[in-house]
Amino acid sequence: MIIVGRAQEVPAANISDGKTIVNAVKRVLIGPDQGAPTFIMRLFTLGEGGFSPYHTHPWEHEVFVLTGEGIVKRGDGETNVSAGDFIFVPPNEEHQFLNGGKEPFEFLCIIPKGEEG
Amino acid sequence: MIIVGRAQEVPAANISDGKTIVNAVKRVLIGPDQGAPTFIMRLFTLGEGGFSPYHTHPWEHEVFVLTGEGIVKRGDGETNVSAGDFIFVPPNEEHQFLNGGKEPFEFLCIIPKGEEG
Repeated sequence: MIIVGRAQEVPAANISDGKTIVNAVKRVLIGPDQGAPTFIMRLFTLGEGGFSPYHTHPWEHEVFVLTGEGIVKRGDGETNVSAGDFIFVPPNEEHQFLNGGKEPFEFLCIIPKGEEG
Repeated sequence: MIIVGRAQEVPAANISDGKTIVNAVKRVLIGPDQGAPTFIMRLFTLGEGGFSPYHTHPWEHEVFVLTGEGIVKRGDGETNVSAGDFIFVPPNEEHQFLNGGKEPFEFLCIIPKGEEG
């Protein structure tokens, strides 16, 4: 059955640990609970000063920025991003997403099914 | 290497055939050319009166609405959608996307690698 929902009505999980992840919430929009067969659509919101972990893993991210001003940190530098930008993080690339502004920085991040982070 | 780009700067392919697909363009944001291993991120823009084909296929769509007012048509009815809505079309479900307003209706549509449409 086709599922339609409003992203902001999906319950947000606080994923902050106060050290490697700060001021960050995650919503799984389309995932195992909806029967997604191949890949998982998540929505992340980083508040002011928020960031995701600086890490690497053997699966890819496909990201699309929805609102706010963000910074993508790589092993060799960083790039500013804003609404309408896409970001491809191939497997095994070091990366981090940071809020570079005052408004919430929101982005979709899609990963293969069975992976996490 | 991490790739960052602006969606609107990606060349748009006109996919309209004037019958089953009307006033529609497609941008492949993250796909085979970028080395995407598992799934492909595309951006579709339907102009006023535009629509995608009413069809079914054995792979899923994961969709996120960016702008405009759309209609998702199913075998058993239709649902209005707008910015911030997500849509999961499981494999083998009949579906169609239509622009229900005057502004461009834009949405991301992610599919498994190796599939099309």
